[in-house]
Amino acid sequence: MPDKKTLISMTTDFGEADYFVPAMKGVIYSINPAVEIIDLTHLIPPHDIYAAAFTLMCCYTDFPKNTLHLVVVDPGVGTARRPIMVMADDYNFIGPDNGVFSYIYQRAHVNRIVHFTAEHYFRQPVSNTFHGRDVFAPCAAYVSKLVDWRMMGEEISDPVRFSTPTASVGSDNQIRGSVIHVDRYGNLITNITPAELPEDRVRAGIRVRIGKHEATRFLTHFAEANPNELFAYFGSAGFLELAVPRQSAARLVEARRGIEVEVVGP
Amino acid sequence: MPDKKTLISMTTDFGEADYFVPAMKGVIYSINPAVEIIDLTHLIPPHDIYAAAFTLMCCYTDFPKNTLHLVVVDPGVGTARRPIMVMADDYNFIGPDNGVFSYIYQRAHVNRIVHFTAEHYFRQPVSNTFHGRDVFAPCAAYVSKLVDWRMMGEEISDPVRFSTPTASVGSDNQIRGSVIHVDRYGNLITNITPAELPEDRVRAGIRVRIGKHEATRFLTHFAEANPNELFAYFGSAGFLELAVPRQSAARLVEARRGIEVEVVGP
Amino acid sequence: MPDKKTLISMTTDFGEADYFVPAMKGVIYSINPAVEIIDLTHLIPPHDIYAAAFTLMCCYTDFPKNTLHLVVVDPGVGTARRPIMVMADDYNFIGPDNGVFSYIYQRAHVNRIVHFTAEHYFRQPVSNTFHGRDVFAPCAAYVSKLVDWRMMGEEISDPVRFSTPTASVGSDNQIRGSVIHVDRYGNLITNITPAELPEDRVRAGIRVRIGKHEATRFLTHFAEANPNELFAYFGSAGFLELAVPRQSAARLVEARRGIEVEVVGP
Repeated sequence: MPDKKTLISMTTDFGEADYFVPAMKGVIYSINPAVEIIDLTHLIPPHDIYAAAFTLMCCYTDFPKNTLHLVVVDPGVGTARRPIMVMADDYNFIGPDNGVFSYIYQRAHVNRIVHFTAEHYFRQPVSNTFHGRDVFAPCAAYVSKLVDWRMMGEEISDPVRFSTPTASVGSDNQIRGSVIHVDRYGNLITNITPAELPEDRVRAGIRVRIGKHEATRFLTHFAEANPNELFAYFGSAGFLELAVPRQSAARLVEARRGIEVEVVGP
Repeated sequence: MPDKKTLISMTTDFGEADYFVPAMKGVIYSINPAVEIIDLTHLIPPHDIYAAAFTLMCCYTDFPKNTLHLVVVDPGVGTARRPIMVMADDYNFIGPDNGVFSYIYQRAHVNRIVHFTAEHYFRQPVSNTFHGRDVFAPCAAYVSKLVDWRMMGEEISDPVRFSTPTASVGSDNQIRGSVIHVDRYGNLITNITPAELPEDRVRAGIRVRIGKHEATRFLTHFAEANPNELFAYFGSAGFLELAVPRQSAARLVEARRGIEVEVVGP
Repeated sequence: MPDKKTLISMTTDFGEADYFVPAMKGVIYSINPAVEIIDLTHLIPPHDIYAAAFTLMCCYTDFPKNTLHLVVVDPGVGTARRPIMVMADDYNFIGPDNGVFSYIYQRAHVNRIVHFTAEHYFRQPVSNTFHGRDVFAPCAAYVSKLVDWRMMGEEISDPVRFSTPTASVGSDNQIRGSVIHVDRYGNLITNITPAELPEDRVRAGIRVRIGKHEATRFLTHFAEANPNELFAYFGSAGFLELAVPRQSAARLVEARRGIEVEVVGP
């Protein structure tokens, strides 16, 4: 038995109105009453594995070591996609093998990926439509009880991952990146970080091009922005972001996930 | 004192924006700091005891034994409706005596129903409009501290219940059931279960009639459905359901709770 | 170490869809795994310190003594506004010094107000836009671990407060008050309490004037109201409120926070 309680964070697209999330929590507590469950969010847009991957990336390291991050955004539920556990750095991640852990593969040292195959650890009978309750919740609970992964499945080395493009700095000193997330305010989060765009270059004055638009100012506080001004800033997740005060930047510049962004100047 | 922490699940129509839910939690923790409170949902449509009853039915058995399920959907707050506790199977249920536990009476073995009358267990003064905080939360907290129910109220045998019609199979082999819930996607949940509709009959090919419409296919995965197709499937709560891909089946077939459903063929 | 777990309540305007709230919780649990975190609400309208102050006022005393109430509604994030802790009665309050604790100053005995200045207790590097994660969450966690406030900052005596007008009874026996909150149903909560409007006067028959409108009945149950009737009642937070059945009283009488209310008669 662990001498400290294990934390399990939950990220789903189930919403908060139905029995889905409490059913999962009930299953977990029934197997391991000693865990502490923390809602990461249940408001991921339905089936949006990219949004789930991004949201998880932005905060998973803020949790205590040994936290188990349970992610059930699972458009392929009932198909052959594998239920997996990613053991990476000091965290475990459990969810469907559909790419939702792509940023983890990029950023963390992966020690092992386990395909859960031992069905006697599942809730029986396993439904076709709710593996959150029937597969992922019980597996998470047994892992939190320190059941050996060798009892629960087999190691794999070919997890599904989606492309997580990184920003690059060209010989012309231009930074080329892309939008990796659009938040619910319409702010555009890019994959450009201080590694590509150090503070002294920001201070010297840069411009950020996106489609036919350009942000000509880098601000440290939203309050400094002019009405309708597209401006750039480093968000709290460590990425260069683009926003417009009290408006959706995504709508203004007709941008969506994947669109290119260039930083030029000075 | 219990050697394990008691779980209390909370189901309300209070929403998540106001002070109602945290006030209830504060009252509970003030009386019994050792409990663990789990939100079942606070997004039951206002005053909809049927939706609350359905949501509770779908997941209450997933919780550990001895969980106390606290349900405050209480259109009659301030009137003479009784605050009660239903002790059934291995669970306790606390809430207003307005029918919200009707499915529990149908499905579980009821050991005892207690009418809470001992007002010194209530938060004083008791408001006219917020018995969740003033009556139900403190009663739940004292029950979780193992106060004897004889100290808190009197046994009753005439709880309010709404009709929970069960499906039946006619001599013509037709199954007659009804819609018992419409979820927020507009999916129609019926009261027909594998008891009436066994798997071999499903495999042989069935049709499901509702109003002037008919679902001619039973699917195991949503992905198999055609656009605009009304189809049938067994949902994760164990009931026959009707849905249309990315649309509201309720709107398409103009159905609502209580409407009849027939399964015919093969 | 405390022999009981410390409760931390969280009130923010971050919503429930993003990584903001779980990042704060992760930071707190990383520093003090023994706390219990309770969501008060995360649905405060963006930047509305008045709504946050009101919601906190309505339920903070329902929590156990020694609860730490963490409030991050922080339109001035990144500016010079101070991060503070208010030690008042048996509770601690942590948040930005922007007036969000104005009702606490009015209602509780303030023992001490501390300006957090010891930056080594902050999460480094401190972002410009997310002091909830980088300043308030870690300070709350260290306070919950009983770190002496003298280590964390300096006592101040000039906190920011907004005006919290109290109702008064004139020589003509008229009660003059004002609307202090409009809830999401459009109900109008005034600052008039039973101290100004005792029960015997209510029973004798009163009228409540607001703008060009008048509530001519005081009801104890919403069910007694007529369609479209503006009526008065004492709400569960102890204030005189005005409502219209199934409508927004705020829209009907074109009222908003701050508008005057008069009680006249009998």
